[in-house]
Amino acid sequence: MSTGVRRRMGVEERRKQLIGVALELFSQRSPDEVSIDEIAAAAGISRPLVYHYFPGKLSLYEAALKRAAQDLAGRFDEPHEGPLGDRLRRVMRRFFDFVDEHGPGFSALMRGGPAVGSSATNALIDAVRQAAYVQILSHLEVDDPPARLELVVRSWISLAESTALIWLDGRRIPRAELEVQLVHDFAALAAVSAAYDEEMAGVVRRMIKDEPPDGAFADLAARLITLAS
Amino acid sequence: MSTGVRRRMGVEERRKQLIGVALELFSQRSPDEVSIDEIAAAAGISRPLVYHYFPGKLSLYEAALKRAAQDLAGRFDEPHEGPLGDRLRRVMRRFFDFVDEHGPGFSALMRGGPAVGSSATNALIDAVRQAAYVQILSHLEVDDPPARLELVVRSWISLAESTALIWLDGRRIPRAELEVQLVHDFAALAAVSAAYDEEMAGVVRRMIKDEPPDGAFADLAARLITLAS
Repeated sequence: MSTGVRRRMGVEERRKQLIGVALELFSQRSPDEVSIDEIAAAAGISRPLVYHYFPGKLSLYEAALKRAAQDLAGRFDEPHEGPLGDRLRRVMRRFFDFVDEHGPGFSALMRGGPAVGSSATNALIDAVRQAAYVQILSHLEVDDPPARLELVVRSWISLAESTALIWLDGRRIPRAELEVQLVHDFAALAAVSAAYDEEMAGVVRRMIKDEPPDGAFADLAARLITLAS
Repeated sequence: MSTGVRRRMGVEERRKQLIGVALELFSQRSPDEVSIDEIAAAAGISRPLVYHYFPGKLSLYEAALKRAAQDLAGRFDEPHEGPLGDRLRRVMRRFFDFVDEHGPGFSALMRGGPAVGSSATNALIDAVRQAAYVQILSHLEVDDPPARLELVVRSWISLAESTALIWLDGRRIPRAELEVQLVHDFAALAAVSAAYDEEMAGVVRRMIKDEPPDGAFADLAARLITLAS
């Protein structure tokens, strides 16, 4: 928002400020509904001056999206310490923080709308997915993933995205529940794949060997056995 | 492909023929790579005549996509007879048939490319997802789904899409294995949700009560217990 105080900014500083202002507006409403006039007003500068720094709304949108993508990818960083389930749980909390902060913009982007879906925006989304994929493999300590593990990890990432989108549509389930559920979903999808494949069974055994007996996975297993009986 | 035989077709017949020819070309290569000239040649008519029936490539693409969407939604129809796991297995086989037949076009569409992602194409994709959702609820005999069941069904539909897309990228896992795996994934995601929610537990108990003791779910459960021990 404008502070009312006008002072000269350098080019890079001004660009950064505009990106920040635009990202906030694009996060709170569908980007289609945000005008350059609004961005100019929120930044406390004139409309022509916005065009001086960005040739059009799409380029400003892409710059804002790039910053958001870097922000999200940064939240995937997690120390390689402690049980895997707890690590993933912390990442899921930061992922939902991000989704919460950028709700309407995240929905519009991921559902594909008129102002989005360019090859540049698709490349940014793919880069974030790839960052998530690389992080998970590094925590699993796998360098050269078999095809079935790649499938489990990548399809789970898409499950996490759709879970977040469904959550945003009405927020009818507490997000903390979904953060835990996605950790469990990861284990469940890996276990299903491992049930019919020896290589995946090895991955899953290594995954759960350091899980504490009172941790999330053990609790889930006990509850599933109760459910089945 | 052109038969070489020229005869006069009625307007609707010609439109249908063009849609069929275009769908075949859009299925085999990314739609961006298919030209109107090619479509005209394959239909055995002149380029201006194509434009007589469709104002541009996008309108022909959307018409082809509409036919493909109706085709796919039709494959979700399944008699309400026998164990649920077997029913879903048959639908998964038909889903992978469709994905197999339309591979490159399906990938280009679902990954979002320059020629796709219009609001009309997004509406068609959403309509197919909704058809899948309605079918699943009808087989579960649920009229008014609780939020957690809606989440499981919708997020599993997205998992099925991403599994198919990953399969198309190299086909490194036999599709029959993935058809079974997706049936198991559905049960696993429902079970994870049911582990912490009484209402979902009721849904899952009804889901598995008619499963045969030598069926897919019982086999999976036995294998998971082996894996965990």
